[in-house]
Amino acid sequence: MTIRAGIAGATGFSGSELLRILGCHPELVVTKLYASSGHGQSIASVLPQFHGLSDLAVDPLPSTAAAWQDQGLDLLFLALPHGVSSELVPGLPKALRVIDLAGDFRLASAREHELYYGCPAPDRALQKSFVYGLPEWQLPKLRGAQYVASPGCFATAIILALAPLVQAGVLNRRIIVDAKTGSSGSGAKAASQTMHASRVNSLYAYKPFKHQHFAEIKQALACIAGKDDVADGLLLQTHSTPLVRGICASIYTELSQPLTDDEVYGLFAQAYSESQFVRLRGNELPNVNWSRGSNFVDIGWALSGRDLVVFSALDNLVKGAAGQAIQAMNIMMGWKEDTALKQVGGVP
Amino acid sequence: MTIRAGIAGATGFSGSELLRILGCHPELVVTKLYASSGHGQSIASVLPQFHGLSDLAVDPLPSTAAAWQDQGLDLLFLALPHGVSSELVPGLPKALRVIDLAGDFRLASAREHELYYGCPAPDRALQKSFVYGLPEWQLPKLRGAQYVASPGCFATAIILALAPLVQAGVLNRRIIVDAKTGSSGSGAKAASQTMHASRVNSLYAYKPFKHQHFAEIKQALACIAGKDDVADGLLLQTHSTPLVRGICASIYTELSQPLTDDEVYGLFAQAYSESQFVRLRGNELPNVNWSRGSNFVDIGWALSGRDLVVFSALDNLVKGAAGQAIQAMNIMMGWKEDTALKQVGGVP
Amino acid sequence: MTIRAGIAGATGFSGSELLRILGCHPELVVTKLYASSGHGQSIASVLPQFHGLSDLAVDPLPSTAAAWQDQGLDLLFLALPHGVSSELVPGLPKALRVIDLAGDFRLASAREHELYYGCPAPDRALQKSFVYGLPEWQLPKLRGAQYVASPGCFATAIILALAPLVQAGVLNRRIIVDAKTGSSGSGAKAASQTMHASRVNSLYAYKPFKHQHFAEIKQALACIAGKDDVADGLLLQTHSTPLVRGICASIYTELSQPLTDDEVYGLFAQAYSESQFVRLRGNELPNVNWSRGSNFVDIGWALSGRDLVVFSALDNLVKGAAGQAIQAMNIMMGWKEDTALKQVGGVP
Amino acid sequence: MTIRAGIAGATGFSGSELLRILGCHPELVVTKLYASSGHGQSIASVLPQFHGLSDLAVDPLPSTAAAWQDQGLDLLFLALPHGVSSELVPGLPKALRVIDLAGDFRLASAREHELYYGCPAPDRALQKSFVYGLPEWQLPKLRGAQYVASPGCFATAIILALAPLVQAGVLNRRIIVDAKTGSSGSGAKAASQTMHASRVNSLYAYKPFKHQHFAEIKQALACIAGKDDVADGLLLQTHSTPLVRGICASIYTELSQPLTDDEVYGLFAQAYSESQFVRLRGNELPNVNWSRGSNFVDIGWALSGRDLVVFSALDNLVKGAAGQAIQAMNIMMGWKEDTALKQVGGVP
Repeated sequence: MTIRAGIAGATGFSGSELLRILGCHPELVVTKLYASSGHGQSIASVLPQFHGLSDLAVDPLPSTAAAWQDQGLDLLFLALPHGVSSELVPGLPKALRVIDLAGDFRLASAREHELYYGCPAPDRALQKSFVYGLPEWQLPKLRGAQYVASPGCFATAIILALAPLVQAGVLNRRIIVDAKTGSSGSGAKAASQTMHASRVNSLYAYKPFKHQHFAEIKQALACIAGKDDVADGLLLQTHSTPLVRGICASIYTELSQPLTDDEVYGLFAQAYSESQFVRLRGNELPNVNWSRGSNFVDIGWALSGRDLVVFSALDNLVKGAAGQAIQAMNIMMGWKEDTALKQVGGVP
Repeated sequence: MTIRAGIAGATGFSGSELLRILGCHPELVVTKLYASSGHGQSIASVLPQFHGLSDLAVDPLPSTAAAWQDQGLDLLFLALPHGVSSELVPGLPKALRVIDLAGDFRLASAREHELYYGCPAPDRALQKSFVYGLPEWQLPKLRGAQYVASPGCFATAIILALAPLVQAGVLNRRIIVDAKTGSSGSGAKAASQTMHASRVNSLYAYKPFKHQHFAEIKQALACIAGKDDVADGLLLQTHSTPLVRGICASIYTELSQPLTDDEVYGLFAQAYSESQFVRLRGNELPNVNWSRGSNFVDIGWALSGRDLVVFSALDNLVKGAAGQAIQAMNIMMGWKEDTALKQVGGVP
Repeated sequence: MTIRAGIAGATGFSGSELLRILGCHPELVVTKLYASSGHGQSIASVLPQFHGLSDLAVDPLPSTAAAWQDQGLDLLFLALPHGVSSELVPGLPKALRVIDLAGDFRLASAREHELYYGCPAPDRALQKSFVYGLPEWQLPKLRGAQYVASPGCFATAIILALAPLVQAGVLNRRIIVDAKTGSSGSGAKAASQTMHASRVNSLYAYKPFKHQHFAEIKQALACIAGKDDVADGLLLQTHSTPLVRGICASIYTELSQPLTDDEVYGLFAQAYSESQFVRLRGNELPNVNWSRGSNFVDIGWALSGRDLVVFSALDNLVKGAAGQAIQAMNIMMGWKEDTALKQVGGVP
Repeated sequence: MTIRAGIAGATGFSGSELLRILGCHPELVVTKLYASSGHGQSIASVLPQFHGLSDLAVDPLPSTAAAWQDQGLDLLFLALPHGVSSELVPGLPKALRVIDLAGDFRLASAREHELYYGCPAPDRALQKSFVYGLPEWQLPKLRGAQYVASPGCFATAIILALAPLVQAGVLNRRIIVDAKTGSSGSGAKAASQTMHASRVNSLYAYKPFKHQHFAEIKQALACIAGKDDVADGLLLQTHSTPLVRGICASIYTELSQPLTDDEVYGLFAQAYSESQFVRLRGNELPNVNWSRGSNFVDIGWALSGRDLVVFSALDNLVKGAAGQAIQAMNIMMGWKEDTALKQVGGVP
């Protein structure tokens, strides 16, 4: 039976990327698109790249529980600004599966939520019903899940690069993460810092010591390592670059014990032996261009004495958002994990 | 039975784009990749985006007819520099199907070939055995063809925009084509005019009065209109822009008779009623970004009195090269025309 | 005696470019900056590139004639949105010299003004007191002028390329102008079509048959040729490209009489023998990158039979706006025409 | 008396930037340009941006001491590939002043030179006669110097950001430097990693643990701090981004003692009270776009507990190369330090 899916926030960058990728998915059909404007138009009028591929109408979000019932959906992707999902989810049909791409349900700690998002955390019982949707480390929990909180783009790149090492307990506490992203990370709404005339020649650091993904990274690594404080010495600094798509993180760690390059490789290879979207590059340092448009994350590293620098690169809109959400969906629905996700990124 | 295909020039931009798209093709498997360097390496070593998706080796082109026989191929894509295919084809196995993406076999006139390519034309009998692979206008000839000469990128954009009008005989002879392209059109080899530091701020015209696609456009339009001189008054001027992918042509024509906007629409709609990759945009002027990464061509126009300006936009590596070659292949093999070609372009 | 100048619209792209260039002007000091926001801040707070170079405050525009008197200005640059200057100028101090970079006072015909700008034309007597500030063709009128209407960016590129030919009367009436510009032409305000994530991969035509610079081009060419209808057969089509700065126009003309390449060169050389900012390139086709950041316009051409294609390239913010306004000022004040304007464009 | 200067390597990026800036220098005239190709052509033929501004011929480097004598130069800039200057300098006229922009004469330690440049170090006595040309820290030595070794681009950004802190002795030994640069840093020669089609979407780390500027940074900081081992715990990781111009370094340090934000500001303010090209931004994090085209370096920082992250941004071709060399020249010649260097960077 074909599953019927809806996308809320369909005209944003993550939402349209969901629609793009799901267009090739054999088990599912997208039947509803929701956005805050463009109502009554076809998606192809709002986003011309879909002309000839989809003539779904853009609807406003249903405003009552009854109206939601009438949508006839089995599954709903939420690609909405922070805070909207937590208001929406309680009113959704009880059986509806939900994959949320925002940060609303990612953090178990209400205190951390308030600290990093600057707003009250949603109901804790509801939050607990969400599985953190990082497939490489959450496979058993995702199988059959109803609610998924899909990880943030920076968080995905950084957790995947650090998890095998913190799990193995081979790192000192001091970890410096210097992460770079492109203009699509700021969303589809026009803003001065994402204007072409300035952005194309800009590179700058932002949000020192307070990027909201920091809380998510700490939580995930603590959980994987089984030690609450494993990432307390982590410092995250994000940067804006003239890329459109892509996140590239350089992660500076110190080994707590001597390891050879082969031993480092072994730790990663063991952790990701079943993870087809993690590509281990060894000492070949990853370029964001290799994964652009694809669901892959590329991980490489350089070792000198106790200094181990790990490099992680992915497409923030695919593995960092829409692709990963679909990967989680494939697992929760019992489909092949890579369904609709085998596309190579286009280079050039 | 699965068809076995090879790609010659696999590490160039058109060649790697063939491999990218064919990765999703259900009827065919790529079994051989040829390039002039990187021999013995896997394609994923040379082009890291294919890591995890293909571990085919990169081979040199077989140098003898016997060696070609041993390749076990049913079909061969040639994505090689101009002039190489015409030396290669005579030595290929007799039953091998060939789709050539270069200009070698496009022109029926040896004189025009010599004039525009600056080198002797290949054997005329061999040239005649090639079908010009523009699916929208060559459908019957492509069915069951063995040899296909795939059109040039500029030629595709311009012929598709003009053909319905010249066929209907509604244009005066004077046609000005101002066409713009991106840096991927210059190929994967490093060259001073495609260096990032200068290209990103460059825009300039090149090859006035002598771009080689001019001959191809004239030939195709004459054939479609059934009048040899229909495009003799056409002037083609090409430009380099800071795009990576994309061709956008603005075509300035004069109607030989008054037409309404609806009548213009009617001519296009009739010509392309069965052409799923031609998207008619009417007075919405096409942006190359709408078709980036996809096999679509977008056509729009503006009409004022007898002045009709037609705008055409496509991805030079997909509809202008690899995608169109695959579209032609699908037809020649009797498969669904859009097999493996339903991908939306990624925006952003 | 040092002249005291003010800049209205100082935080826009043309306004800040005026401030940048005037920083090197030995005869003048900028003493007042006006903008619609940022009041009370220093210009270096609003535009960080000026840190260490200017600590002028950003003020709101004075709202009364008396307040204008108190500003102590000898000269005022207006770099404001269309329509603001015409409201402002009547209330300015009588002796104040004004250089307006907007379109308000460019057109002598009220009808054309209303048609192309969609709003009522300013008072005709006031408009007549403005000199159209294209130095290469208006030198005598600019000397000692009080009011200057500085030409539009597209208009500058196109008029300079066509004027010697229409003046000599060697062209047929049919002229097609295909002009391309960058994202800075849309101004400093954030807007969806100038967002980095889409613009960097976009190229599209806009405003067919109705760009407001068309009227200005027709008027200037008619005046130079001494024939009202000399440009009635001109068609102007503008395009947006991923450039930041730069206009490149390809101008398709037909000679009304046979001319050699040398004769074409002769017409340009004679017209611009005294014009140090017009660089004649002959058959070397100009690249916008050559004039980026400088006040030069590069003009080249290609001739084949009666087909003459003229190519013109300039920086829309310098020769197309701030630089040209300063060039006009230098002439009106009796200073050396190139004062503060000898900077080379930076490449890369 | 006007000084006569020559530029060796005039067609490279640093060389042409020297010519661009020196065009406005009142005390000096460039009389000779040397390059490895383009001989006999004017510089404006090779680099069209100089058309109308310079018609100097491009010459090969003189090959004998006598030929050098005949050049009539007072001062010579060397903007050549690594290793050429050290062969050239011994044969130059004895009184000729030399400013070398390459790495040949920067390092006092022959061992470090061999280690980081992979080739034998030049004669130590000759090396000792060179002053390391970082004006902010070498003012007394530069006055009247004959030979200057101009610092590397990364080194400049990083030393200026760290020097006040290491001088004050407030840092722990562990310092992580994550530095990002643009494509112009790779020079004007076409190469696969600087092709537009790939670079515009690329971001990747390179040269882990072995960038040649590391040695220079260590040496300079040790000298400033008066402690040999002050930077032994520094790790430098460089990255390529889609910028054309610009270096942005994020420098992760730990304070060895508690400091307030004001105290940090005080250390920088004191160190750079006389340095007009160092702009202190405090907690406003610098963007490379602010200094593009100018000789400024912008320094900002973020402090949280003992974690102090310092951010430094400059234009690699100006403060990181040509501009700094001219700044050093101004000092060595006794001219005003900012002569010809007061240009604002163009934004956009």
